[in-house]
Amino acid sequence: MAHIYIYSPAGAVRDKAGFKRGVRRLESQGHQIEIDKDALTSHERFAGDDETRLQAISRAACSGADLTLITRGGYGLTRILPQINYKLVSQSIAKGTRWMGYSDFTAFQAALFAQTGASTIAGASLIADFGVATPKESVDEITEACFGDVLLGQNEGAGWTLPKRTQADRALYEQYAAKPLSIKASSLWGGNLSVLTSLIGTPYLPQVAGGVLWFEDTGESPFRIERMLTQWLNAGILARQKAIVLGQFTESKLYPHDRGFNFASVVARLRAQLKIPVLTHLPFGHVPTKVMLPFGAPARLLCDGSDALLLWDDL
Amino acid sequence: MAHIYIYSPAGAVRDKAGFKRGVRRLESQGHQIEIDKDALTSHERFAGDDETRLQAISRAACSGADLTLITRGGYGLTRILPQINYKLVSQSIAKGTRWMGYSDFTAFQAALFAQTGASTIAGASLIADFGVATPKESVDEITEACFGDVLLGQNEGAGWTLPKRTQADRALYEQYAAKPLSIKASSLWGGNLSVLTSLIGTPYLPQVAGGVLWFEDTGESPFRIERMLTQWLNAGILARQKAIVLGQFTESKLYPHDRGFNFASVVARLRAQLKIPVLTHLPFGHVPTKVMLPFGAPARLLCDGSDALLLWDDL
Repeated sequence: MAHIYIYSPAGAVRDKAGFKRGVRRLESQGHQIEIDKDALTSHERFAGDDETRLQAISRAACSGADLTLITRGGYGLTRILPQINYKLVSQSIAKGTRWMGYSDFTAFQAALFAQTGASTIAGASLIADFGVATPKESVDEITEACFGDVLLGQNEGAGWTLPKRTQADRALYEQYAAKPLSIKASSLWGGNLSVLTSLIGTPYLPQVAGGVLWFEDTGESPFRIERMLTQWLNAGILARQKAIVLGQFTESKLYPHDRGFNFASVVARLRAQLKIPVLTHLPFGHVPTKVMLPFGAPARLLCDGSDALLLWDDL
Repeated sequence: MAHIYIYSPAGAVRDKAGFKRGVRRLESQGHQIEIDKDALTSHERFAGDDETRLQAISRAACSGADLTLITRGGYGLTRILPQINYKLVSQSIAKGTRWMGYSDFTAFQAALFAQTGASTIAGASLIADFGVATPKESVDEITEACFGDVLLGQNEGAGWTLPKRTQADRALYEQYAAKPLSIKASSLWGGNLSVLTSLIGTPYLPQVAGGVLWFEDTGESPFRIERMLTQWLNAGILARQKAIVLGQFTESKLYPHDRGFNFASVVARLRAQLKIPVLTHLPFGHVPTKVMLPFGAPARLLCDGSDALLLWDDL
């Protein structure tokens, strides 16, 4: 099937059992798995020191693999953005290598697109998505199917249903039913909110106008999510997009002090401050079910009632 | 003594007892305390909705007080930065009103300086600094003395001792003993790292070159502190300063996964990436002992051996 190159550009792998399960799972699907020599290296909290991880990225770029896949995210790519050999990576993409990861990997995706215009895929990582322990080492069916589409060159869209929990939700979807949304965007871009926000003001954040911008995050309480979104808003970046799409925001801790201030408050406020659509519940985040989203690809966003659809050409 | 106006521009006051102790403490020093009508208002996690807090700021600006003092920080100013009446605030400063606070208040200080060039003071807040419960309602002596200097128009500097914990520390201070540091900076500026970082890329971050930039924070783990400092670094802002000064970083949670990566690692890395001095242990942060630091004032930074000194003209 496919030649998949496994490497660790960010956090050290502690879950060796998960790593093995992930490799076994991909091998059982018939893929040829090549493991970078420093995939399991550890230095402080990182998968090797900065130079080690930079070399791992360059080796992945020279591997000739169909797909490079990170073992895990964590924290590590932001530190080495100025030293990454973007040209080498973009050349590998031109030759047919796809790059996939998420979370901390967002920094790499954004920087590569900003520096070269090359597209990578926000999708699975080895351990979180294929190294699942329970039950019966089952991997999420949608994630696995979308991952398979990437390898077949058939990753061309993602659809989902918007939830109808509140009256405001229902009113919005009635609007979209009466007048379906149809947006043609210069680029679909986005990723982990904390990671992407940490690139604002730097040469590693792409300057995208007319895009569909999406975010997900984990472990950030609503006030932190709002503070980050406010930075995007006050930087004028959100108003230059055609739509904002929010994915899954997990482990978003609430405090007694919040007194009703929650993620829904954050979304309502964002909508009140923007004239462009703000959709929610994109199936992406630190959750089992993930669609595979190309960073930087021209895309269409359609919404008919509560049915949302993102479409793009396979990379 | 002084007319002090107490108001709540950010988080709701939950600690009513601390509030009362703080007011009593300042009154016992002979000050005339004026309490804003919405100082104890609560809406979700905020001290009233956005409009209520904006009006509280405007009332503080029109109070004619010698000093306006926040009850507490929390989260709330970032949300209302576009709506604040900066002209009214800067006019009050021109007429002799000083503005003081810290933490979330950093957003207000930075935005005001960016929009009008007016200076405010990073210093005490009512509850954390004057509402202390134990022991015997004692207030930190240094904080209280520095606060008194502000009211007397005698807040003109802050000195502290750099710690000699590691060999690298000692080597650095030997350098400064052999050749004392003497920096003339366009502005002393800084504050809470998370809050200030959330302004990068927006019109609310001052464009300061040749400054001394300082940071403090609480509840941020070393990797988050480093990610934020990396944003400043990659945005090119740090290299435009004459020195960086780090204050107290408290409740900085370490994880087993960190394996030796800690705040000291972050400082060492920052020093390796900058040609300008990076000093530490400024007595400011979420700690009892605070000096009072004017935001935006021209300043001198001196360092002789392990003795550091910041000097400025009283506002």
